[in-house]
Amino acid sequence: MINLKINLERLLRDLEELGEIGQDQSGGVSRPSFSLPDLEARKWLKQKIEEAGLIYRQDGAGNIFGRLPGKNPQVVMAGSHLDTVINGGRYDGSVGVLAALEALRRIKEEKLHLPHTLEMVSFTDEEGNLVGDFLGSRAFTGQLSPDRLKKARTQFGPPLEEILQKAGLSVESVLRAHKERPDVSAFLELHIEQGPVLEEEGLPLGLVCSIAGKRYYQATFVGKAGHAGTVPLELRQDAFVTLADFTLRATQLVATKYYGNTITIGRVRLKPGSFSIIPGEADFTLDMRSLDGQKLKSMEEEILNLASEVAATRGLSFYQKLADSTEPVTIEEAMLTRLKTLAEQLGYKYRLIHSGAGHDAQILASICPVGLIFIPSIDGISHTPEEAINFEDLEKGANLLLQALLSLAAG
Amino acid sequence: MINLKINLERLLRDLEELGEIGQDQSGGVSRPSFSLPDLEARKWLKQKIEEAGLIYRQDGAGNIFGRLPGKNPQVVMAGSHLDTVINGGRYDGSVGVLAALEALRRIKEEKLHLPHTLEMVSFTDEEGNLVGDFLGSRAFTGQLSPDRLKKARTQFGPPLEEILQKAGLSVESVLRAHKERPDVSAFLELHIEQGPVLEEEGLPLGLVCSIAGKRYYQATFVGKAGHAGTVPLELRQDAFVTLADFTLRATQLVATKYYGNTITIGRVRLKPGSFSIIPGEADFTLDMRSLDGQKLKSMEEEILNLASEVAATRGLSFYQKLADSTEPVTIEEAMLTRLKTLAEQLGYKYRLIHSGAGHDAQILASICPVGLIFIPSIDGISHTPEEAINFEDLEKGANLLLQALLSLAAG
Repeated sequence: MINLKINLERLLRDLEELGEIGQDQSGGVSRPSFSLPDLEARKWLKQKIEEAGLIYRQDGAGNIFGRLPGKNPQVVMAGSHLDTVINGGRYDGSVGVLAALEALRRIKEEKLHLPHTLEMVSFTDEEGNLVGDFLGSRAFTGQLSPDRLKKARTQFGPPLEEILQKAGLSVESVLRAHKERPDVSAFLELHIEQGPVLEEEGLPLGLVCSIAGKRYYQATFVGKAGHAGTVPLELRQDAFVTLADFTLRATQLVATKYYGNTITIGRVRLKPGSFSIIPGEADFTLDMRSLDGQKLKSMEEEILNLASEVAATRGLSFYQKLADSTEPVTIEEAMLTRLKTLAEQLGYKYRLIHSGAGHDAQILASICPVGLIFIPSIDGISHTPEEAINFEDLEKGANLLLQALLSLAAG
Repeated sequence: MINLKINLERLLRDLEELGEIGQDQSGGVSRPSFSLPDLEARKWLKQKIEEAGLIYRQDGAGNIFGRLPGKNPQVVMAGSHLDTVINGGRYDGSVGVLAALEALRRIKEEKLHLPHTLEMVSFTDEEGNLVGDFLGSRAFTGQLSPDRLKKARTQFGPPLEEILQKAGLSVESVLRAHKERPDVSAFLELHIEQGPVLEEEGLPLGLVCSIAGKRYYQATFVGKAGHAGTVPLELRQDAFVTLADFTLRATQLVATKYYGNTITIGRVRLKPGSFSIIPGEADFTLDMRSLDGQKLKSMEEEILNLASEVAATRGLSFYQKLADSTEPVTIEEAMLTRLKTLAEQLGYKYRLIHSGAGHDAQILASICPVGLIFIPSIDGISHTPEEAINFEDLEKGANLLLQALLSLAAG
């Protein structure tokens, strides 16, 4: 193991500077991809990459790279994303980009000449503020279809095409991004856990062994609206009572037959949505996750059938549309062994951990071996202004990332 | 029985003219109280009242009256409301105001000198577009508290005070309206059924024998938000699953123990309301109705207890606030007998009927005997642009109203 450590002070200064960009009134960070704050953050990152003496590059999807060329063109890559949810925190994503930058900076400073090329990366719109998660890493790995993007409206209103144009990009350039891709031999990501496990066990590091896959559905029960005072209960086709019935049965089904998997209904809209009118329509979102691809598929089928069944029993109709999906990823044994060995050599405690949240690493897994390292989230919280970490944990995570890059780049 | 009939052609012309005021793009009528279209409708009605030779008057709540003085000042009153829900129909309310106008017009034309004074009335904001139902009739009967109005924000945003001011009124004038009230000896209202019963039975008239009372609650389950991928089902305090559980149990309870009564959840809002976040809060509306005051009270108690119980079992909190309430009204036997006898003398078929919807007549019942006459709603629908009636039914309803006024004004 090469005796090299990251410069924590410098890394914290970077995090501090970046955290100021897009700060909102409540002290959170609002930096969705291609918003004004994100454009400012991109400019800031470009300057940092160039100051470090790395080769700056942006691809057709707006993914930003900083390259440290090695003897051969095969690339070992590390990074995450700079975009945040609206009113999010300072660490989700940023930690992974800036730790990768710091690692490459240290290697460059030490003038280490490695066989492989190294790149740090910041992927566009991991949070899916525009049109579904992982726009950048999906473009990079060639997993986007023209249909998905061409007529897409963003959650902020304007079409994706318009937002890309303002950033000097286009739907076509996004779709071509994977063609400019170098030959990537491995991808590493450092990220906050966004859950309570590591903190509860007092451990500084989690080595992710699997990442959940998910299905996002937009769904609707359609019944019949009516006056709350004039239609007797037994004659109603109440879309909300039907949704309530489905919700309980579906949750029960997952809690028993698919124990360990999750189902979440996070958004509901009733129409017409008035105090004294029986809801004729109930629109809702359905989020289903599993670490096991087979189970995810069978759970998905069973839940959709259940919804149709509940609707039919009550005389309503059920409609659904798949809004997004990812497959579960199992981290390769060789990568896990490499990370375990390095953590032990560094004297850092760790545990293996599952990730219920999605990450760019999961998308990269379609083209190369990936490694995902977690550091604890204080109180397990994320996607809020209160998101926080311990800096000693960050130092350990960044050092493990640095050693893993050195080890992988040794060929 | 005096041989006098209303002029259907003139009544239909009035309905036609009024229906044009506030017409929206979808062909419906949007005429909430004190909106520009409502102000225009008020002006139109004033002109009609004066053309008919009736004495125009507006009280401090914006209720509009047209008086035909009799030998003594005791007033027999008939009317309803001109305001509509947003994107409503042409008949809800308007039928009752214009039929009363037509009845008084005919009596005036025939120069009949009756012992009692007659008044037609249009009450302000029956639909509760501003701050809860029945603003005008509640003001007229002295059932409003300063607390309720002083800080009230309307559903359109601006405070009630501001909206009243633009119409030349104030919270104080609304609160004083009942002091200017004449001595009312009876109130009659003609209205569309807003349900399917009369049409299904092929009957032109319904004589309402009881009107449901209701309780409106704004309620919230508060649990804990969290990442849909990182919190296992069994550790969640999911506000929506809790609402679903409560909804099913509450509906079941009412359908069995309180058969014939209704419970409706018409609006739901989850917070933060995102695809992949477990809802930490579920806001919802609760509408409970009964024709029986005792049952309404006991149902209300039991449902609120159930909500607290379901919340406690699942580790959440339950909060509620009474937003509005009315008591059920039973129409007096003497009034029903009078209406039945007149309908039979006119040769009109009818049935007794319950009203699940609320009406101004229900509020007037606190100060005098009331009568409520229904004509059929085509397809049973209301509060939509498709609201419709048969004109022969309208003619019968208006003639019964005219005869009832004559009979009551005879003293």
